[in-house]
Amino acid sequence: MLYESGTINYKNMESIHLFCPATVANLSCGFDVLGLCLETIGDEMIIHKTKEKGIRITKITGADLPLEIEKNVAGVAALALLKESNPDFGFAIEIHKKIKAGSGIGSSAASASGVVFGMNELLGRPFSKCELVKFAMKGEALASGSEHADNVAPAINGGFTLVRGYNPLDIIRIESPSELYVTIIHPQIELKTSEMRAVLHPEISLKSAITQWGNLGGLIAGLYTSDYGLIQRSLHDEIVEPLRGKFIPNFDLVKMTAIKNGALGAGISGSGPSIFALSEGKEIAEKIAVEVKKVFTGTPIPIEIHISKINPIGIQIIDQKM
Amino acid sequence: MLYESGTINYKNMESIHLFCPATVANLSCGFDVLGLCLETIGDEMIIHKTKEKGIRITKITGADLPLEIEKNVAGVAALALLKESNPDFGFAIEIHKKIKAGSGIGSSAASASGVVFGMNELLGRPFSKCELVKFAMKGEALASGSEHADNVAPAINGGFTLVRGYNPLDIIRIESPSELYVTIIHPQIELKTSEMRAVLHPEISLKSAITQWGNLGGLIAGLYTSDYGLIQRSLHDEIVEPLRGKFIPNFDLVKMTAIKNGALGAGISGSGPSIFALSEGKEIAEKIAVEVKKVFTGTPIPIEIHISKINPIGIQIIDQKM
Repeated sequence: MLYESGTINYKNMESIHLFCPATVANLSCGFDVLGLCLETIGDEMIIHKTKEKGIRITKITGADLPLEIEKNVAGVAALALLKESNPDFGFAIEIHKKIKAGSGIGSSAASASGVVFGMNELLGRPFSKCELVKFAMKGEALASGSEHADNVAPAINGGFTLVRGYNPLDIIRIESPSELYVTIIHPQIELKTSEMRAVLHPEISLKSAITQWGNLGGLIAGLYTSDYGLIQRSLHDEIVEPLRGKFIPNFDLVKMTAIKNGALGAGISGSGPSIFALSEGKEIAEKIAVEVKKVFTGTPIPIEIHISKINPIGIQIIDQKM
Repeated sequence: MLYESGTINYKNMESIHLFCPATVANLSCGFDVLGLCLETIGDEMIIHKTKEKGIRITKITGADLPLEIEKNVAGVAALALLKESNPDFGFAIEIHKKIKAGSGIGSSAASASGVVFGMNELLGRPFSKCELVKFAMKGEALASGSEHADNVAPAINGGFTLVRGYNPLDIIRIESPSELYVTIIHPQIELKTSEMRAVLHPEISLKSAITQWGNLGGLIAGLYTSDYGLIQRSLHDEIVEPLRGKFIPNFDLVKMTAIKNGALGAGISGSGPSIFALSEGKEIAEKIAVEVKKVFTGTPIPIEIHISKINPIGIQIIDQKM
């Protein structure tokens, strides 16, 4: 942060320039409840105060997205926040997309959470982070049909987050070891979130559920105690991954390659097609990137790879003008 | 412990006298994976070395249990350990039951874990705690038909334990706040573990499972961070409690009374009929005991109530003879 709450008159702030990070949801055993925040990949967003009230999206680069407020994820989230406040000015929003839509690393969440974070700053921070998550979820609903928080929560809070529950919304920041790295492998095919939802079974066996909550408990305990071995043993998913993995090209081979090269675990990022691998230290994360790239050599599938530490902060202010 | 490993010649130890604590398994959202150890209620056990090889149960007080090794939970667990060691002496076991059989606070687990803990001491500690849990699980299988670890793990390790998984067995000790108290309400009716297993549904909804693992994650995070509010918000079970609660007299009323009087949460201990309530501080735990007792006043159901801190140590050595 470039300023401390309370030391500046927010009313003088004219515009804010933000980094809006990509995020990884689900994390194997944490389906629909866990997420983490990345620090090397994210969109940028500039929000200006305007004399004219209301919200306008004035510019979008990097993606072919609608400028109409009601059809744009950031627009819908912004409207949700505006409904709860009544400023005597308006907002003009520029979105510079770097996270590809449909990649499975929280592209819509970055837009939805970035805009409400920035507006909150320009308004003098009237809303809590939990309230910002709620506004951003409205944007997520436009993108995927459901008001889920597992990407917007880590984007806004940073680190690992647990969505304990929705009634009421309860977001828990989970401590994690400092040397944890993420390798993201994005095979650039299109998977629709709604279709990936449809492959899930509405019922699961009690036995599998018990296995899953044992692993989720182990993962959270491993994160708090920096026990990499426990994190490794816990990163399994026998419920969702078997149903969705087959839609992702080379999923099994990528996962096996990551683990063979030292990953603590690997799985589907969000609803895919990106695959994440967690590792202890940058060196292993980089080795995984190199080896996994080879899996796609000679295939017609273009891939993008990102390496990132866990981002402990979430959305960051790059610049602001008074 | 009355001695340090390495400073005493274990071969000289002739007998050991143990406190074998009661335990609470499941803990609402942690069905089949979580357990905790109590410190004010437990059996006592005295194990003597004998010249004659093998295992004998020489005395049982406080309960009508078989002295035959193969029919006795402690006997079966002892045999499992003996199979993996080859001492030139034998063991004579006295069991002094204080935990009522079928109470749902780990009566069989206390016997199974106590005997293997004590034998391990008399043998010079050749086995790890995880190995002791495995032996004790054989005793549990005799009692309930399944080799479960959610009572023997906290009895042997103390504190809160998570059974992350069984293949291989992976027991995780979970840190917990020091002022956490347990009130146990035991309505003295008979409930068979096997029957309480049979009321469960083999399939559950994915939606409920997600709610449950959000809560389990919240409970574990709350325990690590001493966040009583989070512990409170996480202590829910929408999967097992609705099916089993109705077999326990006054379950809903007891739970409501406990929560109304300050409990962080309450639920079924193990497969019942005991009910546990968790609270911050002894005063609240005692108040709960008083108020819950009134629920049963005028009913024909006798109850027993226990109040205990979390036992951080597990099985304790009361005395030993050289």
